[in-house]
Amino acid sequence: MDREQRLWDWEETAQPYLLGASLLFLTSYAVRVLVPGLSPGWQVWWELVTLVSWSFFVVEYLARLAFSSNRRHFLRTRWLDLIVTVLPLLRPLRLIDMHERMQRRRDHPRLVLEARVMAYTGLASLLLGFAASLAVYHDERSAPGANIHTFGDAVWWACSTLTTTGYGDATPVTPRGRVIAVGLMFAGVALVGAVVGSFSSYLLRSFRQEGEK
Amino acid sequence: MDREQRLWDWEETAQPYLLGASLLFLTSYAVRVLVPGLSPGWQVWWELVTLVSWSFFVVEYLARLAFSSNRRHFLRTRWLDLIVTVLPLLRPLRLIDMHERMQRRRDHPRLVLEARVMAYTGLASLLLGFAASLAVYHDERSAPGANIHTFGDAVWWACSTLTTTGYGDATPVTPRGRVIAVGLMFAGVALVGAVVGSFSSYLLRSFRQEGEK
Amino acid sequence: MDREQRLWDWEETAQPYLLGASLLFLTSYAVRVLVPGLSPGWQVWWELVTLVSWSFFVVEYLARLAFSSNRRHFLRTRWLDLIVTVLPLLRPLRLIDMHERMQRRRDHPRLVLEARVMAYTGLASLLLGFAASLAVYHDERSAPGANIHTFGDAVWWACSTLTTTGYGDATPVTPRGRVIAVGLMFAGVALVGAVVGSFSSYLLRSFRQEGEK
Amino acid sequence: MDREQRLWDWEETAQPYLLGASLLFLTSYAVRVLVPGLSPGWQVWWELVTLVSWSFFVVEYLARLAFSSNRRHFLRTRWLDLIVTVLPLLRPLRLIDMHERMQRRRDHPRLVLEARVMAYTGLASLLLGFAASLAVYHDERSAPGANIHTFGDAVWWACSTLTTTGYGDATPVTPRGRVIAVGLMFAGVALVGAVVGSFSSYLLRSFRQEGEK
Repeated sequence: MDREQRLWDWEETAQPYLLGASLLFLTSYAVRVLVPGLSPGWQVWWELVTLVSWSFFVVEYLARLAFSSNRRHFLRTRWLDLIVTVLPLLRPLRLIDMHERMQRRRDHPRLVLEARVMAYTGLASLLLGFAASLAVYHDERSAPGANIHTFGDAVWWACSTLTTTGYGDATPVTPRGRVIAVGLMFAGVALVGAVVGSFSSYLLRSFRQEGEK
Repeated sequence: MDREQRLWDWEETAQPYLLGASLLFLTSYAVRVLVPGLSPGWQVWWELVTLVSWSFFVVEYLARLAFSSNRRHFLRTRWLDLIVTVLPLLRPLRLIDMHERMQRRRDHPRLVLEARVMAYTGLASLLLGFAASLAVYHDERSAPGANIHTFGDAVWWACSTLTTTGYGDATPVTPRGRVIAVGLMFAGVALVGAVVGSFSSYLLRSFRQEGEK
Repeated sequence: MDREQRLWDWEETAQPYLLGASLLFLTSYAVRVLVPGLSPGWQVWWELVTLVSWSFFVVEYLARLAFSSNRRHFLRTRWLDLIVTVLPLLRPLRLIDMHERMQRRRDHPRLVLEARVMAYTGLASLLLGFAASLAVYHDERSAPGANIHTFGDAVWWACSTLTTTGYGDATPVTPRGRVIAVGLMFAGVALVGAVVGSFSSYLLRSFRQEGEK
Repeated sequence: MDREQRLWDWEETAQPYLLGASLLFLTSYAVRVLVPGLSPGWQVWWELVTLVSWSFFVVEYLARLAFSSNRRHFLRTRWLDLIVTVLPLLRPLRLIDMHERMQRRRDHPRLVLEARVMAYTGLASLLLGFAASLAVYHDERSAPGANIHTFGDAVWWACSTLTTTGYGDATPVTPRGRVIAVGLMFAGVALVGAVVGSFSSYLLRSFRQEGEK
């Protein structure tokens, strides 16, 4: 149990650093995709930032795997960690998970239950939508026959996908772009569905309380 | 507590006037967008109505801010008020919030819980859809390559967006039109989701009661 | 209370006849829209069936209004009756309402709660989708620039609208067709949402019971 | 009751074999649709596998029907079995049903309630989406005016249909393809809705527990 406890403590300590590394990763990726004529020096610098933050994720994951007393148990219970280590753009999904450890540091939560669910899942879907916009724009902008020419188009596509509206005036056409889109559709439908469900249950509860007052 | 109480009382007193000002604002905006050959006199008159109702919102908000004993607390708890003061077309969102104070004046609510949630959120989404139709029509009607040529097209687009159907035969193409559309998508998915959730929970409850009778 | 009771009894007695008249109305409308070269004699006959069934709805509604002890109360509580009397194609919506009276005749319901909600709302949305397909096909088939040429296209459009998929390869272009579509979207999103909500709550309940066994 | 018990026991014993036959059926169908230049020998072989697995379903269903003490009761309670016997591509729907019998063999479920609902319905919708992609690709690839030319297009269409996004850039145009699409839309909206509902209720519950700790 001692080792398990130390693993848990470590995960709690490492969290802010992982969050910082995630933001660095996303920022460097965004700069490399969005800033057009980056000078070679800056190009190398931002690629370095991407690489360093990514390798931080990998090293941290492997360290925890090596550290854990029961590796099969670790692999089975931390499968989401493996996915977001291999595909760092999915890291916003960890936000929801992170909530548990954040909460522990406070005595009592600052927001009502539904507001917390909405805040964490809403933030996760926004960041995921931003990451998907970047990746799709990166793949589609120079593809023949593409509908997504500017980053604005990519954000527009991501919003209409996350809300399952799906106008279809801007859709990915390359295989990689479509794989990213499928990921966003399924993650989006679940995350936005959770936001909507919480909002709906919050309204019912708050209207009920007034009725009782 | 005394000042807090007076702020609360004031907010309750001001509510009907704010509601009236919202309707004035929406009406004047609608007239200016929808009536084609407005004479210069009427043009100025309706612009004045828009400005006066908007400044009423701003003054009322600033007065409350000045009046409040704890301004940081005021800014944090009334963030929705700030948003709907800056963007008055989003004011229908306040309808849901308003419910609480409306209810207090009666002894007992006239409708069952779910019907109240459906009425308030349904009305809010209708008004929001109307405001979005106006704003998108205003921006798109003379844009090159636009699909939305008449106000009917704009309403059609707003309905297919609010229900997340998203046919895509009429979609905004200008940046401002798309920003409005993104707002409507997210607000719509939450509000309509709440209406659907309440309807579904109402049906389950009413079918259950019959089973018990 | 006596008159109120008699009104209630009458409504229970009239129900099977109203259901029969609804089916007659829908059948005659379907025949007139779908069968191309109807001979003048049959044309008149089916128009007569439409008219007779519709006038039955109107007479029955007015009779109940005249019969009721408190007309303002009647108008306020039976507003759905007024709507489906004026627009008989919306009559499938009454199915959900009808459930209560159907149920009373049995000792115990034959299906579990969620299955009953799914059966009634599912049937209502199917009939509503069929009625909307007929009406949209009727309006769109000869409209210039229409996408809906065959009844199959109309059904395809209705299905993609009810599920809020909204491909957009077949959409109404005439004003009347779009008004019908907006009605189907909102009714559809609520009814199908209720079916999905019941299915989801049924699954959670049935999985829970097994866990407890 | 003895016969009823033996029927139940038989259904429990036959389950793994039915699952195996389903996978064989899907595999052979996939090979026949996806592998382009199949030699006549292999063609016959895979057609044989399809036929044998299908006839296994039919024989098993008829055997159970013959075996049952009350045939009308059997037909009424096992209507889903009849559907998936006639249309074996819908067989993934049985997965949800299967859960009950799977569970019985263990002492206690390995996953929390919502995770089990998500796992079974998620897997069912994935397999259903795969089967629908195969069937639509089979029908559409050589249809005039089709949008779905490759299997990738079909998978892309199936994903955008299951999540009710409905971009509309790839949609079936043949009558058979559209019938399959309607089936996928309704099955998809229910299954994915159940996944989203469970995810949402899981989040609310897990956030609540932390609040209580």
